[in-house]
Amino acid sequence: MNRFNQILSVLKTQNPLVHNITNYVTVNDVANALLAVGASPVMSDDAADVKELARVSSAINLNIGTLNSRTIKSMFIAGKIANQCNKIVVLDPVGVGATNRRTKTALNLIKKIQFDVIKGNMSEIKTLAASLCKAESENNAENVSKTKGVDVSENDIITEKNLSENILIVKNLSRATKSVVVATGPFDLISDGAKCFVVKNGDALMEKVCGTGCMISGLMGAFVSAANEISKTNSAVTKIDGALACVCAMGIAGEVAVKSLTSSEGNSTLKEKIIDNLMTLDDEKLESLSLVEEV
Amino acid sequence: MNRFNQILSVLKTQNPLVHNITNYVTVNDVANALLAVGASPVMSDDAADVKELARVSSAINLNIGTLNSRTIKSMFIAGKIANQCNKIVVLDPVGVGATNRRTKTALNLIKKIQFDVIKGNMSEIKTLAASLCKAESENNAENVSKTKGVDVSENDIITEKNLSENILIVKNLSRATKSVVVATGPFDLISDGAKCFVVKNGDALMEKVCGTGCMISGLMGAFVSAANEISKTNSAVTKIDGALACVCAMGIAGEVAVKSLTSSEGNSTLKEKIIDNLMTLDDEKLESLSLVEEV
Amino acid sequence: MNRFNQILSVLKTQNPLVHNITNYVTVNDVANALLAVGASPVMSDDAADVKELARVSSAINLNIGTLNSRTIKSMFIAGKIANQCNKIVVLDPVGVGATNRRTKTALNLIKKIQFDVIKGNMSEIKTLAASLCKAESENNAENVSKTKGVDVSENDIITEKNLSENILIVKNLSRATKSVVVATGPFDLISDGAKCFVVKNGDALMEKVCGTGCMISGLMGAFVSAANEISKTNSAVTKIDGALACVCAMGIAGEVAVKSLTSSEGNSTLKEKIIDNLMTLDDEKLESLSLVEEV
Repeated sequence: MNRFNQILSVLKTQNPLVHNITNYVTVNDVANALLAVGASPVMSDDAADVKELARVSSAINLNIGTLNSRTIKSMFIAGKIANQCNKIVVLDPVGVGATNRRTKTALNLIKKIQFDVIKGNMSEIKTLAASLCKAESENNAENVSKTKGVDVSENDIITEKNLSENILIVKNLSRATKSVVVATGPFDLISDGAKCFVVKNGDALMEKVCGTGCMISGLMGAFVSAANEISKTNSAVTKIDGALACVCAMGIAGEVAVKSLTSSEGNSTLKEKIIDNLMTLDDEKLESLSLVEEV
Repeated sequence: MNRFNQILSVLKTQNPLVHNITNYVTVNDVANALLAVGASPVMSDDAADVKELARVSSAINLNIGTLNSRTIKSMFIAGKIANQCNKIVVLDPVGVGATNRRTKTALNLIKKIQFDVIKGNMSEIKTLAASLCKAESENNAENVSKTKGVDVSENDIITEKNLSENILIVKNLSRATKSVVVATGPFDLISDGAKCFVVKNGDALMEKVCGTGCMISGLMGAFVSAANEISKTNSAVTKIDGALACVCAMGIAGEVAVKSLTSSEGNSTLKEKIIDNLMTLDDEKLESLSLVEEV
Repeated sequence: MNRFNQILSVLKTQNPLVHNITNYVTVNDVANALLAVGASPVMSDDAADVKELARVSSAINLNIGTLNSRTIKSMFIAGKIANQCNKIVVLDPVGVGATNRRTKTALNLIKKIQFDVIKGNMSEIKTLAASLCKAESENNAENVSKTKGVDVSENDIITEKNLSENILIVKNLSRATKSVVVATGPFDLISDGAKCFVVKNGDALMEKVCGTGCMISGLMGAFVSAANEISKTNSAVTKIDGALACVCAMGIAGEVAVKSLTSSEGNSTLKEKIIDNLMTLDDEKLESLSLVEEV
């Protein structure tokens, strides 16, 4: 089996520059996660600075976790340039649904910028779908998802039971936005509108580590950039393959980390081990440990 | 003995959302510390964003460590809403006394917002007392405390020798502000104006870890929120019990961490182990290891 | 041999307050690195706050990693005061050459503020030299260095082969700016315009840790401040000795950390061990393990 076409080797050779306009809570972990897999991170959120960075980067990652007027402006500038230059553009709509500020910003970004990937927890994905997809806006008018701050609402967690309805939402949002949509949780759902995959890697304890979601959206820029590179010589590869590899990589790094924890270790050591495992991960391990099913 | 009324179990069940407007230096550690004990952290400092977050949170934590005009404005907005909605509100007046900017901001926040808890090192507490308490302003007119940047001044460190005078200051500030006042150091003092407790947990090496103070003020929101929950069915429990449990939890996590350090390990591993220990701490350990005396 | 005149002991006794206006990506690591060696960090970037902090600090560190209009203004204010008060002033021109915003800001800071130390990777140093040194601006007009985001360009990495030309650039920039210039890489170059030293400590794996460069510029404030202290009783000691000790300390901390890594550990554990090693480093180890040559 060779689902991922040596994507980690390609990533390490390509060494893509990923420009992040991201929150100040998890920014250091995003940077170290990117370095771990072989990418080069750069962080900047100044309107006068982001244009040139977007032009020379392989990918940009817009994360609204600690948004403010100044950085929102920079996100629009960077996103517009990135689209003009055909760069990979990722959106992490952190906490969308928790406040109008976040909801409006995310919807406006999606309106003005063509994202390659939109990644959120299932509450965030549902919030976007309720606004952007006809079916969801009608069905869920009285039942709009509500995130708990920046965390998924308990009712929205992806389980075996609600899998089929969530698959539909993810697919519909993907069609409506023309983006690969990634919904993370105990099961991760990844769709490009046509196909949909479920990834069963990861461990519930990862929720106790602040920033696993932000790391995924940062890494997403690197992995999708590498998939794009591979697609130049292998037309069977598309962006969704990069997104899949990214989600599997993070899940594997997390589950291996959890298994190695001793009884006196907690979420801080877990974070460290997740990033360490991203660094020691190779294509062989990624292929053999990934748990992907088309659904 | 059952001083803390299963507060950690209640906290984990309640899973309080704690909204932090805090500095960018230690924000990640505050988030992971909150996750470790079973709370949900959210960080946001945008004026248009904080209103709704304050409404849905159990507690808000205002930390002026890297204050600026934009975030100060958001602190007032969030604090006002939190008061209106009867949320737990915590102030960490980082570096108050070091600059006029910090002193004015802290005093103004205290004037406009009713805090449930004000937590600082003894230099910060003395600075506030010098402005807010009649006795202290008269006695110390020529002897106003001066923090060293954001660290306690050497003369202000709480010791056996100066314990009784510091107890008086903490009590007086508590009465003047109608807040539980927590002064941290080798000994921690906690007063609600009527009673005063000294906590002797912790280890001097914790001062070498950036952010232990910020973690305490973040955790304070969660612990006092849990104490508030317990008080609904047990009228003997008040906010000071939450503050006491919080200070003991951090002290225990720190002293256990210091004991487990090898000779090649330093402050970075110590930080990791403190957060890990917060996660593995349970009510039994908290009760048996806490060193609390009423004074 | 006693090259460094017990600089670490002096630093720990002096406990210098180092005020950092620095980026939010690596700020926590800079703070913990400073605490590890015995300094006191303070971080603040608010125009109304930095004046008083600059006055009471031993050193200030200006790092443009995530610059914006607000913090740039504060850098000029703090730098001016620091110069007036004869404080140690350090510049880390992160990503200079990557964007006009960064290049203009760094050049303007150098124009208005007298820096004791300017520290960058070789791409950053070349960018500054191309603007500030006659020889470099003529020779390199068509061959201006281009950083990769905030990383050194592959062509600019200091090697045995390009050592002599890079020595010349570093020396020239030092003369043009009247600052000690530190260019970091596999080999580090340190010059005060008259003398130039190469330091061969460190390990290539340190590049996988986000923030090693930022930690060096933070530590630089502390080490040069201690060297300044020593110079009061030993006129043979000057600022360059502090810069040399700082670069060696970081290199030693890194190489010892790399050697202790197990096969399952990666860049996150490496970061932790580097900071831990800064804490356990003493004058004896610093003297015996430092690899310094005058060139």
